[in-house]
Amino acid sequence: MNDTNRRWYLAERPTGEPDAESFELREDDVPEITAGELLVRVTYLSVDPYMRGRMRDRKSYAEPWDVGDVLKGRIVGEVIESNSEQYDEGDFVTGEGTWAEYSVLDADDVVPADPEVADLPAYLGVLGMPGRTAYFGLLDVGEPQPGDTVVVSGAAGAVGSVVGQIAKLNGCRVIGFAGSDEKTRWLTEDLGFDAAVNYKETDDYRSALDSVAPDGVDVYFDNVGGPITDAVFTKLNLDARVAVCGQIAYYNDETVPTGPRKLPMLIAPRAKVQGLLVSDYATRFGKANEQLATWVANGEITHRETTVEGLENAPDAFLGLFSGDNIGKQVVRVAE
Amino acid sequence: MNDTNRRWYLAERPTGEPDAESFELREDDVPEITAGELLVRVTYLSVDPYMRGRMRDRKSYAEPWDVGDVLKGRIVGEVIESNSEQYDEGDFVTGEGTWAEYSVLDADDVVPADPEVADLPAYLGVLGMPGRTAYFGLLDVGEPQPGDTVVVSGAAGAVGSVVGQIAKLNGCRVIGFAGSDEKTRWLTEDLGFDAAVNYKETDDYRSALDSVAPDGVDVYFDNVGGPITDAVFTKLNLDARVAVCGQIAYYNDETVPTGPRKLPMLIAPRAKVQGLLVSDYATRFGKANEQLATWVANGEITHRETTVEGLENAPDAFLGLFSGDNIGKQVVRVAE
Repeated sequence: MNDTNRRWYLAERPTGEPDAESFELREDDVPEITAGELLVRVTYLSVDPYMRGRMRDRKSYAEPWDVGDVLKGRIVGEVIESNSEQYDEGDFVTGEGTWAEYSVLDADDVVPADPEVADLPAYLGVLGMPGRTAYFGLLDVGEPQPGDTVVVSGAAGAVGSVVGQIAKLNGCRVIGFAGSDEKTRWLTEDLGFDAAVNYKETDDYRSALDSVAPDGVDVYFDNVGGPITDAVFTKLNLDARVAVCGQIAYYNDETVPTGPRKLPMLIAPRAKVQGLLVSDYATRFGKANEQLATWVANGEITHRETTVEGLENAPDAFLGLFSGDNIGKQVVRVAE
Repeated sequence: MNDTNRRWYLAERPTGEPDAESFELREDDVPEITAGELLVRVTYLSVDPYMRGRMRDRKSYAEPWDVGDVLKGRIVGEVIESNSEQYDEGDFVTGEGTWAEYSVLDADDVVPADPEVADLPAYLGVLGMPGRTAYFGLLDVGEPQPGDTVVVSGAAGAVGSVVGQIAKLNGCRVIGFAGSDEKTRWLTEDLGFDAAVNYKETDDYRSALDSVAPDGVDVYFDNVGGPITDAVFTKLNLDARVAVCGQIAYYNDETVPTGPRKLPMLIAPRAKVQGLLVSDYATRFGKANEQLATWVANGEITHRETTVEGLENAPDAFLGLFSGDNIGKQVVRVAE
């Protein structure tokens, strides 16, 4: 164990796209733990798009960070001190920690992360919050039926890549939008998507959809917003379902963005559009975790993580989410 | 019976707001009927906003009218010749007819309109398609719960005025947006709305909502779109439901209108937005008709119609819908 604990703080609230000025790395003491707590050496840290919202001084579903707060996020790591009978030193666990080398977690708030079952980063992706978001968002909000055409934006991301594979397991035709040929190849060649569109190669998404989704769209799982979403809404079939999981296109906007009005497009198809947060499904996380782990173990779901090395590069890893640097889940390796 | 039958035709497809050039009144022969048909003298004709969509050369939920077609619409009238055992001369019926003095309807496609139960125009409003739209749209899509705040746009219209009253019967707090003081007074003094906003008296609808809906919005029944809707979306409560019934603000637009993007606003409240068409509920029309008739008979639902006199003024009655001339249901009196 080090003598000191490097931790990332919110240095200032960003306006528009965050940059290095928004973050400050400080050296603190390694924290003490009290009854029921675990001291965890962070192995991997998760950076996620929703964290941009926590940088704003505005109440939302995730509590805003104050300037001077240590940044929080999902971590996976090794218990190096335990004040709980539930975990021993050397156990690996995952839960809500901090952007830090060492993080204190309550034993009741973590779950085991068995390196025998999956590589540790998977616990931040397919076996973590993004996997569960895909699971409940697609199955509960999207309600995919065999034969449905399912379109996913941000399809090569942590959530989208799992959404598409669960849709395939449910007998759907699956189309992904992603931002590079490497990503679209991954979707169609490795994940079994029926088609994928590199959205940087065209701006005529309606024609692209005519080509890859000639029968229209039954389910749209939206992680992105913007012109892809605008196009998909013109292709919604009768009784279409739209799961609004994320709208990363606007997370750095300081004013309300404008675009084509969509409510008129919902009437003829009687389409349903619903916002989703995975925390609403907490009582069913156990079942989802089990199902996702089975799919991964059977090879029915493929996963991938993009790793940035070193806690000092965590802000870069986070900012890379907005330029689509990641394929699959973006994680930061904090320790070996 | 007259020797001739005046009927309205689509003379040309309007661009933007229709005007007199879009319509042509012709004198035809009174039609003959065949087996199973009824010749009905039209007493009242319904004009409805959705008809604007039928004037476009674009497939939608209602079949487009071709130039040269007789215009269609719901009518209530008297059977003057019957080729069906189901109805006798002198019976009053309601169904899908034409903008005409005489209309031929299939006996299987009409229902009785008993003048003892309600005045004839009510069969085009609260006891007709608008009433059923309110019933299913609010109850099935809006899912109002006691204590919910329900906001209705176009609240003094044929659908909105019934929506608000059904919401009150379900124990909700009800707020209406309407376009004149006469309308807002009608809503609060006669229909029991808890509050009503004259949207022509302010353009700060967010402040208006803060005042009349301080606890936020649980159900929004939207007939209109535009800036009222934009404001309501900023006030959606957790698990809010939005029923998109109509978007009359845009029906005369020739290009896709733009406005504040709303999908980002759905995530934090996990709001559900759904388009609705009453025809989806056809198997349950009987029950809805019965319930609405009971409410009307008991005085639990108040209704009102705005009557334009004379078939020759039907286009004006239709165009008046877009300037909000009507309070309650807009009908045209074609015969005494």
